[in-house]
Amino acid sequence: MLIHRLAVIGVGLIGGSLARALRHAGEVGEIIGCGRGRENLDRAVELGVIDRFTHDIGEAVRGADMVFLAVPLGAMESAFRKMRGNIDVDALITDGGSAKASVVEACQTGLGSLPPGFVPGHPIAGTEKSGVEASFLELYHGRRVILTPTAATSPSALERVTSMWRSCGAEVTRMSVAHHDEVLAATSHLPHMLAFGLVDTLARMDENDEIFRYAAGGFRDFTRIASSNPVMWRDICVANKAALAAMMQRYIEDMEMLAETIRRGDGKQLLEIFSRAKAARDRYIDTASDPGSTE
Amino acid sequence: MLIHRLAVIGVGLIGGSLARALRHAGEVGEIIGCGRGRENLDRAVELGVIDRFTHDIGEAVRGADMVFLAVPLGAMESAFRKMRGNIDVDALITDGGSAKASVVEACQTGLGSLPPGFVPGHPIAGTEKSGVEASFLELYHGRRVILTPTAATSPSALERVTSMWRSCGAEVTRMSVAHHDEVLAATSHLPHMLAFGLVDTLARMDENDEIFRYAAGGFRDFTRIASSNPVMWRDICVANKAALAAMMQRYIEDMEMLAETIRRGDGKQLLEIFSRAKAARDRYIDTASDPGSTE
Repeated sequence: MLIHRLAVIGVGLIGGSLARALRHAGEVGEIIGCGRGRENLDRAVELGVIDRFTHDIGEAVRGADMVFLAVPLGAMESAFRKMRGNIDVDALITDGGSAKASVVEACQTGLGSLPPGFVPGHPIAGTEKSGVEASFLELYHGRRVILTPTAATSPSALERVTSMWRSCGAEVTRMSVAHHDEVLAATSHLPHMLAFGLVDTLARMDENDEIFRYAAGGFRDFTRIASSNPVMWRDICVANKAALAAMMQRYIEDMEMLAETIRRGDGKQLLEIFSRAKAARDRYIDTASDPGSTE
Repeated sequence: MLIHRLAVIGVGLIGGSLARALRHAGEVGEIIGCGRGRENLDRAVELGVIDRFTHDIGEAVRGADMVFLAVPLGAMESAFRKMRGNIDVDALITDGGSAKASVVEACQTGLGSLPPGFVPGHPIAGTEKSGVEASFLELYHGRRVILTPTAATSPSALERVTSMWRSCGAEVTRMSVAHHDEVLAATSHLPHMLAFGLVDTLARMDENDEIFRYAAGGFRDFTRIASSNPVMWRDICVANKAALAAMMQRYIEDMEMLAETIRRGDGKQLLEIFSRAKAARDRYIDTASDPGSTE
């Protein structure tokens, strides 16, 4: 058994699905849930996702050999602060945050140091739903989990957190914190900004009712991610602002060139751009494993 | 019976589906197909979509009381030119082009005038497939068709083309050519540019293999439209360059403001933008009829 006592801070889709998968794999003894909402935690016990719960983070982590932080990015620092003085010195800590530099900073500030047992992580999985009710056993099957060890992370901690995710069926890769934040800015955070931005631009046009009326299927797919949780995305933007703002700048410059090419009516250049994009997209679809995340 | 002899110039998804629906509705006598590819036209006859075919547009329109132009936007002018001197003076002409000002211009130039029987149109329907093999009876069921009469269009021509589309199950609305082109620039052409642009921006990054590897489900949906036909989109961009370039400029300015808000880490403002966008998107999804187009 990999884990004797697991503390899941934030028992929602992400935390609840990890608990279910570890229980199913027989890799965990006891699971303590922690959160603010009593109803969600009661339901988590009923569903057998956790064994018991507390609203106190300090209490939740005491005696745990693995702590999984699945709270919003904006709540990470305060969660680390509450762990201080309560967490065992050799306990492992990992998390599910969509931006990593900010979580590392939250640990440094909240806990006062980066312990060898801290392994920042990001499972690339999720659905549009939230709460323990939405959690399910197979969420991480075949999904990628990126681990971003700090300079202080011990090799054995990294190994154990890797094993934990593999036992849930995930494919684990490792990269630096900065690289993770750049890659996610490009593949996830930027597309969300484009979708939120497009819907907002159209919504603020005078004839917006009419415009949405004529929006077709492509538009629906394209803007689906603009229905994502605004609070979560505010947190992600603030947490990853440097990498995201740089990526947006790059994209805006490319769009300015494309607008200029259209203005000129340069069909040859347009065909080149669209063909290159289509080829990349078709190649990506051929090689990508089945995806399932909007984060 | 609405139509005695229908000439379908371009027997693909759009033209073929119209022919099938009119036949099924009992609103057409004979259907003449016209196109360049022999194989596709043979297949169209086999499938019963058309009765006979010719490769010569002049011959196809002779004796027809309704002509439907479903050729690429870049081929419209030449198609009109070939109709000149062959089409009956009181025949109706309509089309399926995604940008209307350019089709009106193509008629003026190719045919030498805008006849009273010319009713520019745009069915907001389509799939990613093409060719007569992809056509089907129900393509226009419940879909919107926008008709954009010119100053020369006669009321009776407008009425008859409206009846034709209604008999296929479509919901017909009318607007000016310029307004159509602005609305479509916003709801269809701009989103396609954003998707082509995003995929191209990422494909040109050094670590592009890795970036596509970590792209998740949201990205897949978001960029699906970047797999659309590059030639068709080149034509649309060139045909609607004024309205599209203006729309892109507006969007780029909004994105610059969003990037600046992120750079500042202004969570309050970000939450406002994302909440407004989510509300508009959720409202749109509630009220929109079932969509089915990427054009």
